Amino acid sequence: MASKKEIWFATSNAHKVMEAQAYLKTVNIVIHQAKIDVKEIQSPFLEEIATFKAKYAFERTKKPIIAEDAGLFIEALNGFPGPYSSYVYKTLGCEGILKLLTGIEERKAFFKAVIAYTEDGDDVKIFVGKVDGKISRKIRGTMGFGFDPIFIPHGFSKTFAQDSVTKDAISHRRRAFEAFATWFHDQMGHV
Amino acid sequence: MASKKEIWFATSNAHKVMEAQAYLKTVNIVIHQAKIDVKEIQSPFLEEIATFKAKYAFERTKKPIIAEDAGLFIEALNGFPGPYSSYVYKTLGCEGILKLLTGIEERKAFFKAVIAYTEDGDDVKIFVGKVDGKISRKIRGTMGFGFDPIFIPHGFSKTFAQDSVTKDAISHRRRAFEAFATWFHDQMGHV
Repeated sequence: MASKKEIWFATSNAHKVMEAQAYLKTVNIVIHQAKIDVKEIQSPFLEEIATFKAKYAFERTKKPIIAEDAGLFIEALNGFPGPYSSYVYKTLGCEGILKLLTGIEERKAFFKAVIAYTEDGDDVKIFVGKVDGKISRKIRGTMGFGFDPIFIPHGFSKTFAQDSVTKDAISHRRRAFEAFATWFHDQMGHV
Repeated sequence: MASKKEIWFATSNAHKVMEAQAYLKTVNIVIHQAKIDVKEIQSPFLEEIATFKAKYAFERTKKPIIAEDAGLFIEALNGFPGPYSSYVYKTLGCEGILKLLTGIEERKAFFKAVIAYTEDGDDVKIFVGKVDGKISRKIRGTMGFGFDPIFIPHGFSKTFAQDSVTKDAISHRRRAFEAFATWFHDQMGHV
């Protein structure tokens, strides 16, 4: 069996590192946390934000590194809150989103996560995970975080905050990490 | 009379450069546009965004340089949309803000502009301009841009979009540039 590959994850959130380690159990990767104050740029594109973050983090660590960004995109609101989901959650909360959708029947939305990975600070690989769904009429459930209590994934009737098992199984972040794991596996030619 | 000092303004908007030149007519400054694709970071603080921008722009120009950032801060919405005003205007528009304030009596808000100036990329001076007011009940007026049609400055009854003369006289951006001009004047010891 080949030796494990070590990569770093630029995040201040230790929980995300553990989660990533679990998602990557099919590949020979050990993930370490790179606790650096990563500047996020403003952009409507998660891909651009994650790429900038990964390059910025590589400059400081000189290690193979992952950066991640995610957001909730609501069709009737032109993609809002998108890359600013965290700020919008802090200022408007789930209540604000429901208020913005008052009287709007079309409630399609998706969660999207983007992982950017670089080994040299120059060539950046992008992996995307997405989960389609809709915005609920009411806040429901207490599990998870952020906009989970108002997001119902396609094919289900409960919100992410009411059903963490489903969330864990189909989440955008898991899907992005799975795409990364698949690529990594092919790349290395072994499991 | 002393020779004019040349400074650069990092912005893709030529109109802002002309406007700045007009605001700085009391001081011996010639402003040039530095058309660089300046990355804006995500932060709840305009000061941090403008500082990062000015340093970033200095690295690329090696000239005395100004960067600016501005936003609308609504008290009842915990400062939303703040530094993300431009993105929020594009996605939600004035209508979205009015919808978020439905049923809310407390409509206090302010426009704030921050100018960051650096001559060496290290020492950054910050100048702030602010105009207090409230959010109107309806969209009114067609002048100006962005959230002007829903902002009524304190002591007035018309929105910025209904009264561009008042806007021009008391705007946050003008006030920030006036603060810069005062400092600059003191600094140089002449007019």
